Amino acid sequence: MVGRLCFPEEVPVKGGLQSRACYRYRSCITKSSEGLSSCVLLRVVARRICRMSRTRILPPLVLVNFKCYLEATGDRAVQLARYADQASAKFGVTVAIAPQTADLRLVSQQTKAAVFAQHVDPIKPGSHTGHVLVESVLEAGASGILVNHSERRLEASIIEDTITRAKELKLTTVVCANTSGIAAAVASLGPDMIAVEPPELIGSGVAVSKAKPEIITETVSKIRRINNDVTILCGAGITSGEDVKEALRLGTQGVLVASGVVRAKDQAAAIEDLARACR
Amino acid sequence: MVGRLCFPEEVPVKGGLQSRACYRYRSCITKSSEGLSSCVLLRVVARRICRMSRTRILPPLVLVNFKCYLEATGDRAVQLARYADQASAKFGVTVAIAPQTADLRLVSQQTKAAVFAQHVDPIKPGSHTGHVLVESVLEAGASGILVNHSERRLEASIIEDTITRAKELKLTTVVCANTSGIAAAVASLGPDMIAVEPPELIGSGVAVSKAKPEIITETVSKIRRINNDVTILCGAGITSGEDVKEALRLGTQGVLVASGVVRAKDQAAAIEDLARACR
Amino acid sequence: MVGRLCFPEEVPVKGGLQSRACYRYRSCITKSSEGLSSCVLLRVVARRICRMSRTRILPPLVLVNFKCYLEATGDRAVQLARYADQASAKFGVTVAIAPQTADLRLVSQQTKAAVFAQHVDPIKPGSHTGHVLVESVLEAGASGILVNHSERRLEASIIEDTITRAKELKLTTVVCANTSGIAAAVASLGPDMIAVEPPELIGSGVAVSKAKPEIITETVSKIRRINNDVTILCGAGITSGEDVKEALRLGTQGVLVASGVVRAKDQAAAIEDLARACR
Amino acid sequence: MVGRLCFPEEVPVKGGLQSRACYRYRSCITKSSEGLSSCVLLRVVARRICRMSRTRILPPLVLVNFKCYLEATGDRAVQLARYADQASAKFGVTVAIAPQTADLRLVSQQTKAAVFAQHVDPIKPGSHTGHVLVESVLEAGASGILVNHSERRLEASIIEDTITRAKELKLTTVVCANTSGIAAAVASLGPDMIAVEPPELIGSGVAVSKAKPEIITETVSKIRRINNDVTILCGAGITSGEDVKEALRLGTQGVLVASGVVRAKDQAAAIEDLARACR
Repeated sequence: MVGRLCFPEEVPVKGGLQSRACYRYRSCITKSSEGLSSCVLLRVVARRICRMSRTRILPPLVLVNFKCYLEATGDRAVQLARYADQASAKFGVTVAIAPQTADLRLVSQQTKAAVFAQHVDPIKPGSHTGHVLVESVLEAGASGILVNHSERRLEASIIEDTITRAKELKLTTVVCANTSGIAAAVASLGPDMIAVEPPELIGSGVAVSKAKPEIITETVSKIRRINNDVTILCGAGITSGEDVKEALRLGTQGVLVASGVVRAKDQAAAIEDLARACR
Repeated sequence: MVGRLCFPEEVPVKGGLQSRACYRYRSCITKSSEGLSSCVLLRVVARRICRMSRTRILPPLVLVNFKCYLEATGDRAVQLARYADQASAKFGVTVAIAPQTADLRLVSQQTKAAVFAQHVDPIKPGSHTGHVLVESVLEAGASGILVNHSERRLEASIIEDTITRAKELKLTTVVCANTSGIAAAVASLGPDMIAVEPPELIGSGVAVSKAKPEIITETVSKIRRINNDVTILCGAGITSGEDVKEALRLGTQGVLVASGVVRAKDQAAAIEDLARACR
Repeated sequence: MVGRLCFPEEVPVKGGLQSRACYRYRSCITKSSEGLSSCVLLRVVARRICRMSRTRILPPLVLVNFKCYLEATGDRAVQLARYADQASAKFGVTVAIAPQTADLRLVSQQTKAAVFAQHVDPIKPGSHTGHVLVESVLEAGASGILVNHSERRLEASIIEDTITRAKELKLTTVVCANTSGIAAAVASLGPDMIAVEPPELIGSGVAVSKAKPEIITETVSKIRRINNDVTILCGAGITSGEDVKEALRLGTQGVLVASGVVRAKDQAAAIEDLARACR
Repeated sequence: MVGRLCFPEEVPVKGGLQSRACYRYRSCITKSSEGLSSCVLLRVVARRICRMSRTRILPPLVLVNFKCYLEATGDRAVQLARYADQASAKFGVTVAIAPQTADLRLVSQQTKAAVFAQHVDPIKPGSHTGHVLVESVLEAGASGILVNHSERRLEASIIEDTITRAKELKLTTVVCANTSGIAAAVASLGPDMIAVEPPELIGSGVAVSKAKPEIITETVSKIRRINNDVTILCGAGITSGEDVKEALRLGTQGVLVASGVVRAKDQAAAIEDLARACR
């Protein structure tokens, strides 16, 4: 009875939402893999609906990237995700998290935070040893994907293919951009969110919103000429509520943070500080 | 009490083995990340010991690579792993499995089979968004790693670095080689096992041990000139017990299979057929 | 007296254009490498000016990509370039060529056609063994660069960096796009030209302009919403003048061709057929 | 009459060597591309013979890697190659050079030094835009190839394929190794030479032969257990004749140098110093 233990919130799914979601999810799954037994499908669908209900990702948003920090691996990833949950509940702000692939299921089972994969490969199911299948992170509980982070840059065509695959499976995409030019470019590809991060400030502790505000305003302006719907985040060096407020003031709808939270002496306090600033 | 539920076999760890393992694991962990609280460490160590005790990987070996097949993703990965367990118990043969990264923890919690990651990046813990940290797959329950599969080829220096990282954390390495030349080359790098797989036969249903036996004998002979300790596997096109027997007769100690099991109409029967042939 | 023999057209450079070009080129060169003796610089500048004068690339344009075909390697590259010259002169149409890196200097010395490199790396001069320095293809006579061809796809940030480096050295950029989405994305990065090529039609002999005209019109429309200045080319399967006429009719300013010319039984006739259609 | 002007040394080829070389070269060329006219083939063959006669690469060897330094690009590459020629003639030592791809033909036409490409792709002739075809560097005058330099690391299988392609076309291979382990591994692949270079010393001015002599002796010993024929070079930080003497004393047959020569205030003096030490 693994499922029941792990997904207590899944039981009472019914009504119109369910049927629509079932239909949409079944159709996209069956397209990519005929012949899955219907009982497996139903279990998958049930989990998917639960996931959808809990992962409506509304800005303002604090998205915490766990990277490959040991302070956010395995059990410590769960701990950090709980801090995210608490801050989210306390301030009514979306605090999402991006754990490592191997921790996606553990974290999504133990907490309520919206969970992002740090990377997927836009392959179809099949013989692709060592790659990250989009279906696998979806089943593990992810409701979104980080795409093209500065530490995992992708070919332009791969970014487009990843967005396409994510849309097939109703996953939210956050495409990272190292410059305002790249941000404008990916805005044409129709992602759900774009996060601009000047790589030289990543992990620096010097907040992009304070050190280089012109990059943010330029990015917002370039993106808006092309795409009015996409949510805009910024990141790099963000460590305090002050940095977040400045980022929102400059026209973004949230922030992407990593070391500022993960490597903080008091992770819970760090995450609360950021969430509080988003109210 | 997550740990207790998930790892019932972990409780009674004690005696000389424990302390040595504790010492070795703690020292390698602390080298890469100071400041983890000792309670976390103890939990990690306890899990690690449990893992070590269950993952003595003795040939002959059937290693089932789940690749990115939907028939071996999520809950279906657990099901397939159970078949591996059963075949292993029934015939006294090691049947190990290589699920996708997102499924490593689920599969290793629900079954007893030795679990391999399909790929890791030989990075140290830190800011490496979207990469696969060796510590993360270890904590998720892996006891080994596939390296340099034909569908995920690596730079020569990365293969060496991966073997080094795996040794630090006591993970078993199976390095794949597409030719006898590459098999001989990687034999110098000191992996635990080498699996030779002619890429043109992968997924073909035409067994390397029958169609190209000379590749296997040549590989065994070239490897043995350099390395007498490494376990030698072969793969590509293996689907039946006959193929396995032929492979063992040619001088290998086991086989690496994927579609022959994963895409079989009756996965349980397919895996039993292979395991029976190894007795 | 290599210079004199190879570049007879270089001798009479003077006047206002020269000084501006000298100034611009010197400043960009000296930024990246102090301490080059001024005589070297003057030689480089003189060659550069000559190159600029002969490489005003005006649409309509036929750009012949030599790829790695043996029929367009070494001496045979020179022969093919001469056919391009002749067609260009006969019909008053720009016929540019993209030979392999090792043939750039030979071809640009022996012919008058505008020469494109097939790929460069956006590195600065320095320790980058095995890469293609932009300055090296410039000195070898290139006046432009193919970027992100389907057979050599680049990370999004590398495309932007390549365009930036090319602008520093006044080289023309033709960025390839495999879809209309990617075409729109790269339009934000400010290249001189964009060439849309559906990869499934490359080398097929089935012309994109006839088989998938909607891709071209969609691409033109998406690009024009973002960028009114960029020259738009299309390619894949183009073999005849008819295909070219159709491409121009659909809103492009030229074509990118390869096997249709390079592998034609009569290269000279094939290239004339395409150039004639551009008049 | 390009050929005559550029290759005056090619005219008088005759005798037994010629016919064997013709036969061998023609057979390897025709395998990869039927239908080249015989007159082209004869020209190619004639050039090839000339190349072979001048490129018998006998140790001790000084191999100067031009990397992407502006001080060794275009005309300055020719100048540096002339210094190599002079040092070679003066001390009776082989001084080979590895210019950038775009400079291979220019340098091999203007000087007598054995010329290495810094990188090739082990593709067959065909549609591979932006790659480096082995045939193209051969026709441009290269007699050898650097493979797997630390600044251009390759997948293990690509190293093997490159060696195979180079042997088809009688090109000499120098495979670089960043550790003694990788050196031993590539020794199984049968290259002509192996150059061990600890990456942390590259460009440092601290010679590997003085700072880490144990790496060299360990490399020599590991390689010799597997391969007695391969020529062993070392590199990284080599700047003086002293460094070279030490390298030879430790069991190597030559050195791979770059910045120590290319960025020297007096390139001619630097190269003479190294060549003198090899006598």
